[in-house]
Amino acid sequence: MKLTLLGTGAASGVPVWGCECIACAAARKNPALRRCGSCALLQGRQGTLLIDGGVPDLADHVSPASLSALLVTHFHVDHVLGLFALRWAETGKIPAYAPNDEVGCADLYKHSGPFEFRRPAAFEPFEAAGMRITPVPLAHSRPTYGYLIEESGARLAYLTDTKGLPPETARRCREFAPELLVLDCSYPPQNPPPRNHNDLPLALDCVAQVQPARTLLVHISHKLDVWLAQNPGDLPQGVEFARDGMQYEL
Amino acid sequence: MKLTLLGTGAASGVPVWGCECIACAAARKNPALRRCGSCALLQGRQGTLLIDGGVPDLADHVSPASLSALLVTHFHVDHVLGLFALRWAETGKIPAYAPNDEVGCADLYKHSGPFEFRRPAAFEPFEAAGMRITPVPLAHSRPTYGYLIEESGARLAYLTDTKGLPPETARRCREFAPELLVLDCSYPPQNPPPRNHNDLPLALDCVAQVQPARTLLVHISHKLDVWLAQNPGDLPQGVEFARDGMQYEL
Repeated sequence: MKLTLLGTGAASGVPVWGCECIACAAARKNPALRRCGSCALLQGRQGTLLIDGGVPDLADHVSPASLSALLVTHFHVDHVLGLFALRWAETGKIPAYAPNDEVGCADLYKHSGPFEFRRPAAFEPFEAAGMRITPVPLAHSRPTYGYLIEESGARLAYLTDTKGLPPETARRCREFAPELLVLDCSYPPQNPPPRNHNDLPLALDCVAQVQPARTLLVHISHKLDVWLAQNPGDLPQGVEFARDGMQYEL
Repeated sequence: MKLTLLGTGAASGVPVWGCECIACAAARKNPALRRCGSCALLQGRQGTLLIDGGVPDLADHVSPASLSALLVTHFHVDHVLGLFALRWAETGKIPAYAPNDEVGCADLYKHSGPFEFRRPAAFEPFEAAGMRITPVPLAHSRPTYGYLIEESGARLAYLTDTKGLPPETARRCREFAPELLVLDCSYPPQNPPPRNHNDLPLALDCVAQVQPARTLLVHISHKLDVWLAQNPGDLPQGVEFARDGMQYEL
């Protein structure tokens, strides 16, 4: 499987509108430092999955013909923003797996275009694009799934947005033994800890619970980017901060 | 006043995802032919208005410090998409005038960031950025305002989205005697006519009712772009199709 992280930013993105902090100023000068909302592509042997749609220019990154299925982690705007403009495609249906959230986002259910929403049960595996996918509940401010994805022995755990991990989810993720964990790490260490996301200490707790071979931290805010510039290094072995456009072969 | 049309496309934008029609194929090759969702900037002597926020990279077009007020025509996603990412600005409040729509769009009311929503009454003028602004009801699928905007004798009527004009709105617009009319023209001539937008004949009826000095047609779909390529010319004097980025001095 080849994972491409299209968007690694928190809800505000980086740069934040009107912000002149060192991270936002640097991202305005250098597009490589920008962070869009959450979005990833996962190419397998038999097809491609889109995981969330938080980048605004999604149409330029994937064609309807090449897309086997969509996985939605939850219906906050920053995770589905780029899906709205895709709804006028005159193409075959694309299965869209999502947690059971009655409200959805704006009129995404009412006018779903090619996306055919399905609500898989937690911990019940299903197949899409030739991959075996298990939804696992996360701890966020609305119904949210992480996804454990496996193809031919390659194993990815995609867990954002979340604050820590519910006990059964943590247990399943550890049993899954992922080669790669993609994990919410929105903020630098803070006291009190954030309400609905991981700060760095909470994210490292999750890593310790899941014990993946490697971890990419995502959903990164400008505050974390500032903190990182001032506090370089010192992450545990195998843990790193992601960047928009980063690719990983599993 | 200086008007900049940042987005002149229908809800799908141009190119439409996966569409290979001549308009969409041309727009993929030549970015100047792309159309984003509805969005305009109006710079006056005392300040700048943003009219809708349908372009995804809005933060790159306007700074919070330079923005005096926001006018929202209605809460369809393609008119407010770019506003979501602006909500994390740590700046002073920005008045946001909008029709009385209890639902809004997604969590835009709940987490409105710097935007302070106000609901001006129809036909009751208010002042923003040193301009005199009169909201006029339009005929669309949810509560929608057009805006008549005047500064030092320069007069702009901004009327999208709409199918025709309600009689009192048509009367007020004609009395207003705008130098420039910006008007919904989503589709080529079609039978039956569209339900919630103007096709070209309906748009030209509106022009005949309002009698502006000049008209820019906006909210243009790829179907209209295809029709235009096949049926060039022959618009009435003073009427033309807009393009993203087009500017007009009033």
